[in-house]
Amino acid sequence: MSTSIADKSENSYRIFAEDGAAKRAEFTTGRGVVQTPVFMNVATVAAIKGGLSTEDLEQVGAQIVLANTYHLHLRPGDDVIYRMGGLHEFMDCKAPILTDSGGFQVFSLSQRRRITEAGVTFSSHIDGRRIFMGPEESMRIQSHLGSTIAMAFDECPSSKAERSYVEESVARTTRWLARCRSELKRLNALEGTVNPGQMLFGINQGAIFDDIRIHQAQEIAAMDLDGYAIGGLAVGESHEEMYHILDVTLPHLPRNKPTYLMGVGTPENILEAVARGIDFFDCVYPSRNGRHGHVYTSRGHLNLLNARFELDKRPIEEGCGCPACSRYSRAYIRHLLKSGEVLGLRLCVLHNLWFYNHLMADIRQAIEQGCYSTWYKTRIDEMKEEK
Amino acid sequence: MSTSIADKSENSYRIFAEDGAAKRAEFTTGRGVVQTPVFMNVATVAAIKGGLSTEDLEQVGAQIVLANTYHLHLRPGDDVIYRMGGLHEFMDCKAPILTDSGGFQVFSLSQRRRITEAGVTFSSHIDGRRIFMGPEESMRIQSHLGSTIAMAFDECPSSKAERSYVEESVARTTRWLARCRSELKRLNALEGTVNPGQMLFGINQGAIFDDIRIHQAQEIAAMDLDGYAIGGLAVGESHEEMYHILDVTLPHLPRNKPTYLMGVGTPENILEAVARGIDFFDCVYPSRNGRHGHVYTSRGHLNLLNARFELDKRPIEEGCGCPACSRYSRAYIRHLLKSGEVLGLRLCVLHNLWFYNHLMADIRQAIEQGCYSTWYKTRIDEMKEEK
Repeated sequence: MSTSIADKSENSYRIFAEDGAAKRAEFTTGRGVVQTPVFMNVATVAAIKGGLSTEDLEQVGAQIVLANTYHLHLRPGDDVIYRMGGLHEFMDCKAPILTDSGGFQVFSLSQRRRITEAGVTFSSHIDGRRIFMGPEESMRIQSHLGSTIAMAFDECPSSKAERSYVEESVARTTRWLARCRSELKRLNALEGTVNPGQMLFGINQGAIFDDIRIHQAQEIAAMDLDGYAIGGLAVGESHEEMYHILDVTLPHLPRNKPTYLMGVGTPENILEAVARGIDFFDCVYPSRNGRHGHVYTSRGHLNLLNARFELDKRPIEEGCGCPACSRYSRAYIRHLLKSGEVLGLRLCVLHNLWFYNHLMADIRQAIEQGCYSTWYKTRIDEMKEEK
Repeated sequence: MSTSIADKSENSYRIFAEDGAAKRAEFTTGRGVVQTPVFMNVATVAAIKGGLSTEDLEQVGAQIVLANTYHLHLRPGDDVIYRMGGLHEFMDCKAPILTDSGGFQVFSLSQRRRITEAGVTFSSHIDGRRIFMGPEESMRIQSHLGSTIAMAFDECPSSKAERSYVEESVARTTRWLARCRSELKRLNALEGTVNPGQMLFGINQGAIFDDIRIHQAQEIAAMDLDGYAIGGLAVGESHEEMYHILDVTLPHLPRNKPTYLMGVGTPENILEAVARGIDFFDCVYPSRNGRHGHVYTSRGHLNLLNARFELDKRPIEEGCGCPACSRYSRAYIRHLLKSGEVLGLRLCVLHNLWFYNHLMADIRQAIEQGCYSTWYKTRIDEMKEEK
């Protein structure tokens, strides 16, 4: 049973195996069941960068897709996507889609920002025009997009920000969350809404201040949402600081709801975060690195532009079943990359997304088998070997 | 039975339907049978531009691929491809591959050329280094690449060149052809040759001088090659001049051998040339135009960047079975193109190559049905309608 802006009488999230803090669960959405822990494949403007189609996504084992509200609001416009029948229809995607709230991009990509209690006024990174976005606007845009899961509109304070600024910002993010919740309930009930069962995840913020994180986690846990994200990590703090924040914060978020570590991360980050109880991840690394010829293997990553691959007949990784490794050699892909052929980037991105999605499948299996806590450390060590 | 540098006792080319001068034939190669008339899909550096993989080529109905000798000689180097087991192995292509001779690129892309009887010395367009290529060098490179069909090394004089220059150039191209033939026979007999059955097509040149074209056609027809190309067209002359050259030259090339009109062309050019007896075509238009959002339909072409497609839910062409039209709307593809997403280019190139390959299938059917001469004129008229 899928829920929308959670109602405690329903149960869309079911844990069926645990190993330490690691959870193996299934999350039922209006677009089918997601097996967690899971990686969300990033389709910023309703397409995976590197030329991947929806078929390609299906081929690499993608369960769920993430699209960016800020980018789609600017181009083609959420009104266009609404009139095209919503994001699923627009990109012909059968899988669940989570949309971020635009909050992170408003703070990282746009210019000349002014924050008030109402929301943020900023300049488009495309044409500089002034735009206002607050909790209600973000919900309306995401409702237009008709994503399966909407994210709350938040501010992401820098890990370097002063304590006083972070306190004020986080309190405002919590007030914004209440407004998101009300607005999405209203929108879901409207006639003509693309996805009347749109779910809402709240976001924990607080930079690297344990007590601010914990206090806000307790506040939003009481709001009975469909899931809970931890934001504002992987933005400049150390990996140890990130793991510490997870250690102190996660116990204050509901264990019977999915958790999402936003924008994270390396395979090692993911393995460590799963051990602490995270369900959802998203990251641009596999597609961005793939576009630069950096590919992941279970024995560490390779830079295919390296001259030592000139005559290498092996696939990127022996035994890998991805569309690149099934047919093409390192030497061929290196040649394509050196020649600036788009196919080179595409094959690397296909491989990397396959790698991430299948890493998650291995993670799920290890939790089911009750060996996660030892298995994941071996897996991390193996990835540090040089291939 | 496939032949290699033809032996009259064998017969690799069989015409089984004719309609006026149009021929419906099958051409047996060491990599299987090609049904003609046929379009060769251009994979310049061993990949179709726009991110298409070998799977994609199979999906759009490609029977045969063309790769560029000059480009592959410069990068990754034909020695690399030889050591990788040849082009088919390198790009994992099951279909026959024709390689051009490098002649056209030496004259169109390289700088500071010096032509002698021996061959051409020129500067690489990549790093400026001096390179010598003559008939023997071109054959050795193509033998390394191991293509199914090698093209003779020729000079392509401009359609604007003086008669005296063209006469001298064409006589040299004919002498070069005899050297290509000898060298390829020698290479095919060597141990370690990638494709010992590599075929050779000769090339007719002569700019727009009827008598020079005819004289050379008669000379090369006597040389008993595996096929005959007409080069030096679609390089600045009018369409009427092109059709005129085909009208006067083709009767002097063997009708019982495949003919190939190099670098041509628009769907209309192809329909007109088939009516005159051409079997093989190659052209960068479908991939180059696709990369700019220009797509072909049976009612003329569309520019998908046009604002009128912003909310157009239709596929590029109704009823088209290509991977783009099967799933995606004009509005989605337009959004991808406007956003600079590689997937937008890729979908347009997939559609255009499907269009070209299926246009050839329609052509073959019309010849079989004996209605080509009326059918092709209707088809040309329909493409002039505005969609």
